[in-house]
Amino acid sequence: MGQRGPLVIIGGAEDKTGECRILRRFLDLGGGKHARVLVITVATKTPVEVGAEYVDVFHRLGVDDVRTFDVSTREAANRDSAVQMIAQATCIFFTGGEQERITKLLGGTKVDSALHEAHRNGVVLGGTSAGASMMSSTMIVEGEGETNPRPSIVRMAPGMEFLDGCVIDQHFAQRGRLGRLLSAVAQYPHHLGLGIDEDTAVVVHDGHVLEVIGRGAVSVVDAGGLTYSNLDKVHRDESLALCDVRLHTLPEGCGFLLRERRPIPDFPHWLRQKELSS
Amino acid sequence: MGQRGPLVIIGGAEDKTGECRILRRFLDLGGGKHARVLVITVATKTPVEVGAEYVDVFHRLGVDDVRTFDVSTREAANRDSAVQMIAQATCIFFTGGEQERITKLLGGTKVDSALHEAHRNGVVLGGTSAGASMMSSTMIVEGEGETNPRPSIVRMAPGMEFLDGCVIDQHFAQRGRLGRLLSAVAQYPHHLGLGIDEDTAVVVHDGHVLEVIGRGAVSVVDAGGLTYSNLDKVHRDESLALCDVRLHTLPEGCGFLLRERRPIPDFPHWLRQKELSS
Repeated sequence: MGQRGPLVIIGGAEDKTGECRILRRFLDLGGGKHARVLVITVATKTPVEVGAEYVDVFHRLGVDDVRTFDVSTREAANRDSAVQMIAQATCIFFTGGEQERITKLLGGTKVDSALHEAHRNGVVLGGTSAGASMMSSTMIVEGEGETNPRPSIVRMAPGMEFLDGCVIDQHFAQRGRLGRLLSAVAQYPHHLGLGIDEDTAVVVHDGHVLEVIGRGAVSVVDAGGLTYSNLDKVHRDESLALCDVRLHTLPEGCGFLLRERRPIPDFPHWLRQKELSS
Repeated sequence: MGQRGPLVIIGGAEDKTGECRILRRFLDLGGGKHARVLVITVATKTPVEVGAEYVDVFHRLGVDDVRTFDVSTREAANRDSAVQMIAQATCIFFTGGEQERITKLLGGTKVDSALHEAHRNGVVLGGTSAGASMMSSTMIVEGEGETNPRPSIVRMAPGMEFLDGCVIDQHFAQRGRLGRLLSAVAQYPHHLGLGIDEDTAVVVHDGHVLEVIGRGAVSVVDAGGLTYSNLDKVHRDESLALCDVRLHTLPEGCGFLLRERRPIPDFPHWLRQKELSS
């Protein structure tokens, strides 16, 4: 579906010991057994352990060429050797950790530019948990779960900008994050909220066609048609009132068109129709 | 607002040591200091402890006449003495516990009839947690939190039928219950889903005008306009796909009209307008 590389955006805790359906799909999109995989561990404070875990999984899934990439300074992210590592990969995976470590260490560096160039040239980018959140232009940095929406419960910042038009949250059902995602889209209603469950992923084709895979669901929270919001009246720790949010719950087999803000209940059927007509 | 008594439906864990705003409102609706309060502990397996806690709170809030009511058999719920206790109260409160204990012990007994008669005659009925769930015609008996919607995660049964047209869930944000409430309304889309947070309550006036009070919010989940549901296609443990659910997040100061399925962003203003026009 076009030149731009697919994104595989995972809600955390993806299966790494069983069928590994999500990670396998990630590899398949980038060359299968012949993929050249780079695991970027910048988000985590334990890069050696986390990196080794993914190297093991990807090896077990049949890929020989798996490398890890970590920097602890922005200077290192501006080195030509770092840029070369990015340029050689066909599949680039961001591990979990803290999403702000990714933007603070990589944002605006030569590695950042190399990642975007790779993405434009068809390289697959994947990310889980923190590595999922950073994909969007505006990202949730941190926030409280299991509470009703209030502006103060979510902190937002610019993301790495691989995906436009949405705000991504992960561990969505498992950590009761409806309130925090609503708090985010209440402040940025032009963005769609994507709440991705654990062991569940969104595969983004062509920059705007979303396909859901995995065990849970993706909740799409669309505040575009809000008929009332008290955002302008409340203090940051007061409760938000939001009327007429559109909500879609999309498990595997469903999709979503970001630009049209439209769910696709039967993604395989939609895809066949589209391929027939083009 | 009419003859029928108000309902005070609480999402659990209401404040019992501080201002006790919700419990105070419950008492105010039923006569304030002159209220005759009956605490029904049928839902809990520890009626003595739970009953004593509410007696203490209501005494502290200035009401002298507070009694407790418990039965452990349906036979006891058919005795005239039990019916008389119901008939003498102006405020009847259902504690938490298991909602099915309430329906199994009281459903269809003389106490059940007496409760409905009291409600028709203006007596205030309150309930928290299990005592909230049982208020509706169709109730959630039990279910998993923190997961995406699947038919199997929620078990439903007839409730005590004090409120028509909705399914009530409690501890809503705190226990990540969006998935289970969506599972309920997917199966009964003619019912509205009311997800009530802890220390938060819905006051029902006239059987259909909802007023939100308390610290959290009430999430109204309206599946009436669903454009797609795969309920007829999935096994009970498979993930539900639901497109175009309407969602409202309503904190204190907001209301909702059950019959019109319409949120009221500014409840006090709406009430003034209504009183002026009548």
